[in-house]
Amino acid sequence: MVLEAPGRMVMREFPLPAIGTDDGLLKVEMVGVCGSDVGMYQGKATRAPRPYPIIMGHEIFGTIVEVGEKASQRWNLKDGDRAIVEYAFGCGECFYCQQGDYIHCEAMFTYGSMISCKDPPHLWGAYSEYLYLPPRAMVHRVGQDLLPEVGVLVCAVLGNGIRWLQTLGGLCPGDTVVIQGPGQQGLASIIAAKEAGAEKVIVTGMTRDRVRFELAKTVGADQIIDVERDDPIERVKEITGERMADIVLDVTGNPKGAIAAIDLVKKKGTVILPGLYGMDREIPLVLDKIVYKEVRVQGAFSHDFRSVIPAIRLAESKKYPLEKMVTHRFALEEAERAVRVAGGEIEGEDPIKVVIIP
Amino acid sequence: MVLEAPGRMVMREFPLPAIGTDDGLLKVEMVGVCGSDVGMYQGKATRAPRPYPIIMGHEIFGTIVEVGEKASQRWNLKDGDRAIVEYAFGCGECFYCQQGDYIHCEAMFTYGSMISCKDPPHLWGAYSEYLYLPPRAMVHRVGQDLLPEVGVLVCAVLGNGIRWLQTLGGLCPGDTVVIQGPGQQGLASIIAAKEAGAEKVIVTGMTRDRVRFELAKTVGADQIIDVERDDPIERVKEITGERMADIVLDVTGNPKGAIAAIDLVKKKGTVILPGLYGMDREIPLVLDKIVYKEVRVQGAFSHDFRSVIPAIRLAESKKYPLEKMVTHRFALEEAERAVRVAGGEIEGEDPIKVVIIP
Amino acid sequence: MVLEAPGRMVMREFPLPAIGTDDGLLKVEMVGVCGSDVGMYQGKATRAPRPYPIIMGHEIFGTIVEVGEKASQRWNLKDGDRAIVEYAFGCGECFYCQQGDYIHCEAMFTYGSMISCKDPPHLWGAYSEYLYLPPRAMVHRVGQDLLPEVGVLVCAVLGNGIRWLQTLGGLCPGDTVVIQGPGQQGLASIIAAKEAGAEKVIVTGMTRDRVRFELAKTVGADQIIDVERDDPIERVKEITGERMADIVLDVTGNPKGAIAAIDLVKKKGTVILPGLYGMDREIPLVLDKIVYKEVRVQGAFSHDFRSVIPAIRLAESKKYPLEKMVTHRFALEEAERAVRVAGGEIEGEDPIKVVIIP
Amino acid sequence: MVLEAPGRMVMREFPLPAIGTDDGLLKVEMVGVCGSDVGMYQGKATRAPRPYPIIMGHEIFGTIVEVGEKASQRWNLKDGDRAIVEYAFGCGECFYCQQGDYIHCEAMFTYGSMISCKDPPHLWGAYSEYLYLPPRAMVHRVGQDLLPEVGVLVCAVLGNGIRWLQTLGGLCPGDTVVIQGPGQQGLASIIAAKEAGAEKVIVTGMTRDRVRFELAKTVGADQIIDVERDDPIERVKEITGERMADIVLDVTGNPKGAIAAIDLVKKKGTVILPGLYGMDREIPLVLDKIVYKEVRVQGAFSHDFRSVIPAIRLAESKKYPLEKMVTHRFALEEAERAVRVAGGEIEGEDPIKVVIIP
Repeated sequence: MVLEAPGRMVMREFPLPAIGTDDGLLKVEMVGVCGSDVGMYQGKATRAPRPYPIIMGHEIFGTIVEVGEKASQRWNLKDGDRAIVEYAFGCGECFYCQQGDYIHCEAMFTYGSMISCKDPPHLWGAYSEYLYLPPRAMVHRVGQDLLPEVGVLVCAVLGNGIRWLQTLGGLCPGDTVVIQGPGQQGLASIIAAKEAGAEKVIVTGMTRDRVRFELAKTVGADQIIDVERDDPIERVKEITGERMADIVLDVTGNPKGAIAAIDLVKKKGTVILPGLYGMDREIPLVLDKIVYKEVRVQGAFSHDFRSVIPAIRLAESKKYPLEKMVTHRFALEEAERAVRVAGGEIEGEDPIKVVIIP
Repeated sequence: MVLEAPGRMVMREFPLPAIGTDDGLLKVEMVGVCGSDVGMYQGKATRAPRPYPIIMGHEIFGTIVEVGEKASQRWNLKDGDRAIVEYAFGCGECFYCQQGDYIHCEAMFTYGSMISCKDPPHLWGAYSEYLYLPPRAMVHRVGQDLLPEVGVLVCAVLGNGIRWLQTLGGLCPGDTVVIQGPGQQGLASIIAAKEAGAEKVIVTGMTRDRVRFELAKTVGADQIIDVERDDPIERVKEITGERMADIVLDVTGNPKGAIAAIDLVKKKGTVILPGLYGMDREIPLVLDKIVYKEVRVQGAFSHDFRSVIPAIRLAESKKYPLEKMVTHRFALEEAERAVRVAGGEIEGEDPIKVVIIP
Repeated sequence: MVLEAPGRMVMREFPLPAIGTDDGLLKVEMVGVCGSDVGMYQGKATRAPRPYPIIMGHEIFGTIVEVGEKASQRWNLKDGDRAIVEYAFGCGECFYCQQGDYIHCEAMFTYGSMISCKDPPHLWGAYSEYLYLPPRAMVHRVGQDLLPEVGVLVCAVLGNGIRWLQTLGGLCPGDTVVIQGPGQQGLASIIAAKEAGAEKVIVTGMTRDRVRFELAKTVGADQIIDVERDDPIERVKEITGERMADIVLDVTGNPKGAIAAIDLVKKKGTVILPGLYGMDREIPLVLDKIVYKEVRVQGAFSHDFRSVIPAIRLAESKKYPLEKMVTHRFALEEAERAVRVAGGEIEGEDPIKVVIIP
Repeated sequence: MVLEAPGRMVMREFPLPAIGTDDGLLKVEMVGVCGSDVGMYQGKATRAPRPYPIIMGHEIFGTIVEVGEKASQRWNLKDGDRAIVEYAFGCGECFYCQQGDYIHCEAMFTYGSMISCKDPPHLWGAYSEYLYLPPRAMVHRVGQDLLPEVGVLVCAVLGNGIRWLQTLGGLCPGDTVVIQGPGQQGLASIIAAKEAGAEKVIVTGMTRDRVRFELAKTVGADQIIDVERDDPIERVKEITGERMADIVLDVTGNPKGAIAAIDLVKKKGTVILPGLYGMDREIPLVLDKIVYKEVRVQGAFSHDFRSVIPAIRLAESKKYPLEKMVTHRFALEEAERAVRVAGGEIEGEDPIKVVIIP
């Protein structure tokens, strides 16, 4: 399913690539629809121009159908194994790749967004029956009984939550954490926070988020704030004895969330912003607030193997009912509708996670 | 010299406090006029309401004229010694003071700003002949031959630069640093950057900053960018081979500086904001830029003994001609004019550092 | 109960000190016997000479019986409240105290070890009916229903475990941790490790530690290794897929534990040594092993409020049956026997935690 | 020049490997003799068995004589360029390589030590006219006018010093650093310390180190201690006002150095051990000393591009007369003698750095 230009998706067939000793091929079983897919479909500005035509899809779960000998060793898997694949893999040679920071690769080698499907091997996105696995792809074998619904959440949802709060956020046991936005990223972040020993996890949302609030409690939220009914600043003051939160994560995608985060965090605290506010969206911040409090505002983007490996183990432990986040399923032919549902364009639908089953 | 309300300063006499075993009295020899003094005089919003009447002045250099026995031991000094005194001292009992973070004291115990002179011992600011030294005051003996002009710069100028770039900024040897604004804080920050091993220090300013640019070079700036003539983004790209700066410090006090900082910093780089943009000033930032680059934006406020002690040693080494930053001197009676000159209200005057000699 | 010299303890009476506005008095309800008490009783060399006579006892739980007005505000408690008191409090003025590192106070102001009971206010140890609380004492109010058995473990057992593994060890969620020695410190450290998200906690001990092993499993140990039956190196290789442990903590007090730790840790891993091997005990280490693996060996000593506050919350949550660690109780008159039991001098007794009830 | 077994070196000829698009060939112009070469020649135990026959040599300076198209792009160089090559390059696929930690590669891919010359392309060491450059080799172009004597020091001497003190040691501006051993590593570490803003660098050595002491002063040492004449502990106490050193680096290769380091470091200080004491050498340490002081003992091994790139810039700046460290030069045929001179086996020779010119 190819995105030829913003707002235009068409089904196309490509020849399967020949697989050598160093690469592989995945049969996609399920792919998640990411908020950034919605932005791509809508033609929103992002960190660089999109190389249309693109096969979207980077929340990937599938089965290995062909794998070269060296690749099999490297990834420690064989034909028939189930696997998840990370979003980014990198060129391997730039300054950032040398440091193991392939998510900041200067060539931006990633699935489903920054490599065109124009040229062979074409299959650079998972809104597709098959996905090409180049030598540097970050492929992880997972338990054969992992639910596809859990598999699609491991990297870009749970792996993100772990990286944002634990690795970048430096969450310490005993911390009080505010998570703004009870969507898929917020829910996974509750889990990441509790697993790292957060004492109190406070989740904020809107009145219409009632179902999400219940799920939030199920996965460990200690306090829920409906910001349409209660003033979150007053409530967090109360809960923390005036000290405010050690870490605030804003996954609302809404500029108001970023603005509120600055008020909810304590002196010397940390605000984590995974953003998606829009590259053309200016957000008015009173910066002197972060000055007097010496707040750290940390941009956060994506996941890597350092957070995906713990995410796999957590998913395999079945400690949390992650699959409950998947509320909508579509066939590959319905990909366009799937993206529009995920984008909130379809009245009456209030999805947490939308997936496509090719 | 008492600030009774914004815009109104009057000379008043107070009785000298009685000094016990635990405290002391300083004869003020010189006091610097800080940018925040200008804001206070103008009645600008700050982190909390001001407790007028206030004796301003917290960049303090003087001579000990009386000191109790225990205080003498604690501070390791005696009558007649020259000393500098830090801005903040803290209550000693709140959560932040217990951690040694007295600059974040919940009671905000500081000189020249947050303690009224209404009640005894009155002398809580250095726009005055004498200054009271309570047991917790952070008093540091300095070499008897330290120039007063250097003494007033040690804490709130050089100490700030060291704390902002080294302690909070985590500057590493080999780093490229952009310092926006070649005023007193910028100049001191050049020194702090070079002393920590910065490979390239790039200073930006306006065409009218020509004199400051010369001083910047004298203290170690490697590159100067006049942003009215050259595009700083293009120039920094050029200098860094497209990678951009490891650390950007904005000491312009101008919202445009904060906005530019986001563009000048590299992926995973750090932006240090000591602010003073105004607590009622909203600054429009494209936050997604810090998301994709995973930038850390760090608020920075003031100094403490961890940076002041190295600043004293550096000042005493006479390695840099710090005294050249002092361009304007006033008597205590002229304090109001001194503040207005520092605030740029007086045409024809272009001060770097304004000081008052009580 | 005064330790007049190594091996000589006598009961003595002291006058109760007068309490002013700034200090307080605690009625001791229970006090733990620390391994270092045993060393003191035996006259073992330590970091500095002991100022005999000493009232030992620094694992303190009791009830406030008198508290001055300012002290009451500072500690947020009143007469009749139950409280625990940290081991160290510091002079408040030395280089380390200024940083909030009062456990490294140059004057070594601590309970039960480094202040003689010769001079008023005498009551500097908790092997006593009453304990003096100076202004700087780190007193924490706890829930009225906290068991005394839990109270004595909060600071020097659970607080230590949290500080050693989390604060100093930098334990990350997903880590594999080896804890050598299933005594009181080992058991508390299992809890600290699991609370911080350790994926696997491996506990090693001897065949005679069977009861401790059961308790270890109860509080969260994932794997038990009896080093008299299995080779711990082989077992940890197996469990970690050859990679070895991220963090190894040695609380055996036995030089062999330190030596083994170096082999059990992975490349770039961390070994935490809280020691008590003896200040006159040389331990033969192959240092090149820590060189090639770039291991960090971190000395660890005691706790402070940063770890005690989370420890209190954890204790109050009643999530773990901490009280089960207390295996032996003695009256104050039996203090000498209590210390000898704790020291393993009494055949047939195999205590985990020994306490005294004054 | 092939080391067939400990103590046996013979000259052999190998065919030059065919170079494809992805690799290259270096004409070796100069190679340093490392202390570890001496150990290898003497057959000392190390982290893993040696795969004899071996071409030793990993302190590499030369000229590119052939380079494939892709390799040329990756390394940003062409035929005729001068280059230095790092010791390690890694397999690129193991856990450590994925993190950019190729110096800890599980396959231990390194020059001059862990790859046999038995099989093609044979040329895995720089005691040779030519050196093979595989795709992952860490090759750095350097200025055409860089002295070969400086070139051989950039990676394994200056790069080590930078990594050990700055990256691993966390040296902060203002720190006091003790460097034990004024050999090549010690001298380079003085430079690394001063460049990172160390306030005082204290160098210890023996009476016979007089020439090295002079060189130490030339490159920035502030204090010299001849441990045969003065007690280093007393002297460091004096210099630091009893506080002792923030960081102690032991590059004596002598167990006594490691033991002394523990006494010379302050509370909460850091001891850096690059070792080479011998893998069969047990060193008796009083570990409780590091416990009470909460010292960090950090193993340190080798360099990587993070320290080599700043080392290149520093070398190219010609700020320090690095070439003065090279005291002995040998032809390739004399390699065996070169190693024995470096090992101190030849009476009357007291080399700092021995090099071979193939």
